[in-house]
Amino acid sequence: MGEHTYTPTAKDLSYTFGGVPPVASLRSGDVLTMFTEDCFGGAVTTVDDLPSQVCTFPYLNPVTGPFFIEDTEPGDTLAVHFLSIVPARKTGVSSTFPHFGALTSTSHTATLQPPLEERVWLYDIDAEAGLVRYRARNSDFTADLPLDAMHGTVGVAPAAFEARSTITCDAHGGNMDTPELRAGTTLYLGVNMHGAMLGLGDGHARQGQGESSGVAVEVAMTTTIAIEVIKGVPTLWPRIESDNAIMSVGCARPLEDAFRISQHDLVGWTAQLTGLDTLDAYQIVAQAGTAPVGNVVDPNYTMLASLPKHLLRGADLYGGTHERLRATPHPDATGTGAP
Amino acid sequence: MGEHTYTPTAKDLSYTFGGVPPVASLRSGDVLTMFTEDCFGGAVTTVDDLPSQVCTFPYLNPVTGPFFIEDTEPGDTLAVHFLSIVPARKTGVSSTFPHFGALTSTSHTATLQPPLEERVWLYDIDAEAGLVRYRARNSDFTADLPLDAMHGTVGVAPAAFEARSTITCDAHGGNMDTPELRAGTTLYLGVNMHGAMLGLGDGHARQGQGESSGVAVEVAMTTTIAIEVIKGVPTLWPRIESDNAIMSVGCARPLEDAFRISQHDLVGWTAQLTGLDTLDAYQIVAQAGTAPVGNVVDPNYTMLASLPKHLLRGADLYGGTHERLRATPHPDATGTGAP
Amino acid sequence: MGEHTYTPTAKDLSYTFGGVPPVASLRSGDVLTMFTEDCFGGAVTTVDDLPSQVCTFPYLNPVTGPFFIEDTEPGDTLAVHFLSIVPARKTGVSSTFPHFGALTSTSHTATLQPPLEERVWLYDIDAEAGLVRYRARNSDFTADLPLDAMHGTVGVAPAAFEARSTITCDAHGGNMDTPELRAGTTLYLGVNMHGAMLGLGDGHARQGQGESSGVAVEVAMTTTIAIEVIKGVPTLWPRIESDNAIMSVGCARPLEDAFRISQHDLVGWTAQLTGLDTLDAYQIVAQAGTAPVGNVVDPNYTMLASLPKHLLRGADLYGGTHERLRATPHPDATGTGAP
Amino acid sequence: MGEHTYTPTAKDLSYTFGGVPPVASLRSGDVLTMFTEDCFGGAVTTVDDLPSQVCTFPYLNPVTGPFFIEDTEPGDTLAVHFLSIVPARKTGVSSTFPHFGALTSTSHTATLQPPLEERVWLYDIDAEAGLVRYRARNSDFTADLPLDAMHGTVGVAPAAFEARSTITCDAHGGNMDTPELRAGTTLYLGVNMHGAMLGLGDGHARQGQGESSGVAVEVAMTTTIAIEVIKGVPTLWPRIESDNAIMSVGCARPLEDAFRISQHDLVGWTAQLTGLDTLDAYQIVAQAGTAPVGNVVDPNYTMLASLPKHLLRGADLYGGTHERLRATPHPDATGTGAP
Repeated sequence: MGEHTYTPTAKDLSYTFGGVPPVASLRSGDVLTMFTEDCFGGAVTTVDDLPSQVCTFPYLNPVTGPFFIEDTEPGDTLAVHFLSIVPARKTGVSSTFPHFGALTSTSHTATLQPPLEERVWLYDIDAEAGLVRYRARNSDFTADLPLDAMHGTVGVAPAAFEARSTITCDAHGGNMDTPELRAGTTLYLGVNMHGAMLGLGDGHARQGQGESSGVAVEVAMTTTIAIEVIKGVPTLWPRIESDNAIMSVGCARPLEDAFRISQHDLVGWTAQLTGLDTLDAYQIVAQAGTAPVGNVVDPNYTMLASLPKHLLRGADLYGGTHERLRATPHPDATGTGAP
Repeated sequence: MGEHTYTPTAKDLSYTFGGVPPVASLRSGDVLTMFTEDCFGGAVTTVDDLPSQVCTFPYLNPVTGPFFIEDTEPGDTLAVHFLSIVPARKTGVSSTFPHFGALTSTSHTATLQPPLEERVWLYDIDAEAGLVRYRARNSDFTADLPLDAMHGTVGVAPAAFEARSTITCDAHGGNMDTPELRAGTTLYLGVNMHGAMLGLGDGHARQGQGESSGVAVEVAMTTTIAIEVIKGVPTLWPRIESDNAIMSVGCARPLEDAFRISQHDLVGWTAQLTGLDTLDAYQIVAQAGTAPVGNVVDPNYTMLASLPKHLLRGADLYGGTHERLRATPHPDATGTGAP
Repeated sequence: MGEHTYTPTAKDLSYTFGGVPPVASLRSGDVLTMFTEDCFGGAVTTVDDLPSQVCTFPYLNPVTGPFFIEDTEPGDTLAVHFLSIVPARKTGVSSTFPHFGALTSTSHTATLQPPLEERVWLYDIDAEAGLVRYRARNSDFTADLPLDAMHGTVGVAPAAFEARSTITCDAHGGNMDTPELRAGTTLYLGVNMHGAMLGLGDGHARQGQGESSGVAVEVAMTTTIAIEVIKGVPTLWPRIESDNAIMSVGCARPLEDAFRISQHDLVGWTAQLTGLDTLDAYQIVAQAGTAPVGNVVDPNYTMLASLPKHLLRGADLYGGTHERLRATPHPDATGTGAP
Repeated sequence: MGEHTYTPTAKDLSYTFGGVPPVASLRSGDVLTMFTEDCFGGAVTTVDDLPSQVCTFPYLNPVTGPFFIEDTEPGDTLAVHFLSIVPARKTGVSSTFPHFGALTSTSHTATLQPPLEERVWLYDIDAEAGLVRYRARNSDFTADLPLDAMHGTVGVAPAAFEARSTITCDAHGGNMDTPELRAGTTLYLGVNMHGAMLGLGDGHARQGQGESSGVAVEVAMTTTIAIEVIKGVPTLWPRIESDNAIMSVGCARPLEDAFRISQHDLVGWTAQLTGLDTLDAYQIVAQAGTAPVGNVVDPNYTMLASLPKHLLRGADLYGGTHERLRATPHPDATGTGAP
């Protein structure tokens, strides 16, 4: 097991999954502590820094990486376990963004209406107390919300020689923007090319389900992951394992299809794990499952289908990968942080 | 405050919201204990009772009622608090149904594929232990799931002189099929015609989020509600209040629109309750809200947008209706139950 | 064959399909000349008559009827042939309407943006020249467009005891808003209740495909129809026959489903008419069919799937109903017109 | 003006837009005659060649190119005029494909149903008579359909460093699959990177609107294009100009959004060309426009919004590019054709 740290400079960041050379190599069993920039590239630091002015398309939502994962081939699965996700700054930022979000017309849900006002919010992050503080812009209303740090964007190079913007999610992962990707969980991604090409970014101090304003509480992160390569086991859509649940991730538009993909994958996974036939698995998922909403704002939406693990009666989940990675000792992260 | 009981005979059940004369009258403050049939009209009692054979369209999803609510007019709100929802039988039933459900083509998502096998599952309900027992049909797999009784269908007569099938939900409520409609919650429905015309049915011993197979754990219920009329306060889309959260309900296709409706309503409601301006309210909902999925199978899908009540700092919620109804003593329900 | 004329007064108009008693009776073979009001009830006569101010919800989109069609039962088909559709006024009206239309957020595609400006356009109708004249409001631009008179709304009472707003279309017809419903075509509607209960309205001097602004060139009409009852032949979704094509109509949201319904119905219809098996019929429809867009603005959208009739090699189409009705002599329409 | 011919070998074909080095260079004003393979790479030649067996993902839908267009930069527009599109083989092929098409569940509209039968159809192409002959597989039914040759796939490298599969369409063009891309039309594509990187493929002897079976009448083509670079004029979404109409192309899911994008672009384009303000342009598009359906099967659907050119009163359309290219003499195409 190797322990690595990695802090990118601005020019090391990447803006697509696929089409980018690796910044470093990792092996199955390695632990990596890295710095990830926020979705605005750190350019929004005051409420007067309007993202549409201080950021330049397409230099949005940078990811750290890609990391070449040795001995991975199409048909393998890469497991990425989040040992810790720690805000690397004291302030998180959020905003509206012109023609982006769920409660506005957009470039695709195109209307003739002008955009909503672009407005920035700053959140104080109190990591010790586990809180982020919302402060209204047009009144003195404040509220403390639980810190629930997560990564919006985690992915590998897509299949079919594609390179996809880091703003999009799909079968390769990417900008899934689900609050379920928090420390303590393991993400399973199917490998599409030699080396997998793992990238991470878009830390959120927290986000609501749906991310309806289009932007979460964005913040740079110091994140430690442990990885494992599962040879010869394909994974079609991203899957997440927590201590208590298995989750299938669907990324698509319309939202129905994101739902269908996630439910379909979970039914098949449940059938495989329990020996139930397809309809019996469909039935138990329909009655016992939950459907956590990820985002309803990005180029593809994200829906999850989740089932409590205890219903699986100890079935073999990727060969015990999650338990193994969960037990990985956390390295000293000294020396990694915001530049 | 009047206490009432009501047990319908088969011919008293109704199959639309709107277009049906009332079966009885209630007043603000009344408590009613009633029997509701299951969505199959009680016709499915063994695994050989295939719903498409033992049920006759359109005699599906019967509701008890409608009840004429005295002194209600368009522009008022009817609050329906669920004091208790108790399974009236020992067995719940579920099934697949030809070309109905999320993981099959349907009458509307029409394909040339044949339907999935129609299969029935029976669930033992152990009300004392608070469990429902899933039993696979093609193996000896069983699993105990929490009893979480709820009503799939609660509504009033729609606006614009419409009569809508009890299988559909919309702004008038109806077949919302959300697991959030459990005992202890208050449902707010806008009144569309003199007398409101409240109906209830479609009890579920439990359901997963999304109800992906199209059918929950269906069971007749003995249900006690307390109602209150809120004069002069309109409610555009159904809203739910629990002890801990406020929730806006969107009913629509596609699923995006159900999401948008619910988020839009919750943002407006939050702004009204907190004094935040619209964008500040949008921001806090986006970061602190959840989006519980109702159904993704009915003629209209259901999404909820939910916000913790503590963020509202004690704002006035429909004049304290929920707290008042929550404190209503539960009547003796003797004499009401399955015929 | 009976010839009838019918001119409703304002109080005779109806606002739902279903739930309304008949205004008169017709028999198979009858010819009826009637007056239909425009979708605004005639209330918009100048550019200063903003619909949201001069109209009162739900008194929008009135239909003439319903007509009780003798000797019709569920499982029959009602054929409605349009012998003529003639504007009953010299001026057509169109408008934007707040939060209604394809290029604005709406009550369901809900956003936080304010509505577009509400604006009215008047069109001069020159029936003799076959033209309607568009005049811009904010410049002196004018354009003559072909008069192509049609009915947006034609339907019968829905199934399952429903009453549906005349603003909605569905399997019962209703507000389909397709430019294909012009004189010379025959509409086939499945009968859902004894008497069928036919209603017509929402005349358009013309409309574009999609009706993207939400409102066509609206005008009262003097319309003559000939009807025939086809006993024992069910029709699931509306179908249209012209001299050259057969068309299946799908009404649904999302638009994909309207497309799927129409294509699915046309494939089945083609298979039945030609003896092709399902996949062979699917193939010819896919290569030879067109997909005329109806509306993408109403509560349900409309898509048509169309196939040239010559590909059917003279197959029996509803027993030759269209040819028979097409040959009906046009009655003298004296005495019918705008009140 | 340079005249070029280009015939790729199998290894010269490309499978993405973006991420591929150019095969040759062209200049504004050049004419190019090229060979394009069919979507199956020519591997389906008998009804027993099932595409899922004889083709290997991701080697589907190859395009000829990319061609580096000299002196193009982001912000320019590339005009591609089709002087001729001529089938390069005597036989066209079509098929169903497992879980692909509009009338089947798919990888994204995921259901638990098995796929439809995979079946291949061969079409005789009679270029002289201008016909393609459909032959049923399970009966002796045949039908002659008009030859209407077109390219399903024409595009440039996408923005934001993306590389997109040639199966997908988006703002960069790509697999639009609209029957409007026939000889005599000019396609306008916004340039996203230095050199534009034009690619073409996916010839169809004809297709229906919607391409509902997922596959058109596929055939290799000998195609001659004339190109022009329009400096400093950006084009956001693909646009098509024919002798009689202007058309905006929207590529998206859901289909509503493809519709909205196309209508929104056409309204803006019309306003710019006519001097009408936005709402006046919206109004004339809504009444005079058509909405030709492209495909409803690919990863993104295609809808077009079209307006008759005569309504534009001779407005300047990209500086007269279409008329200029339309007048280009057709070169001798000797020496180019199927290898």
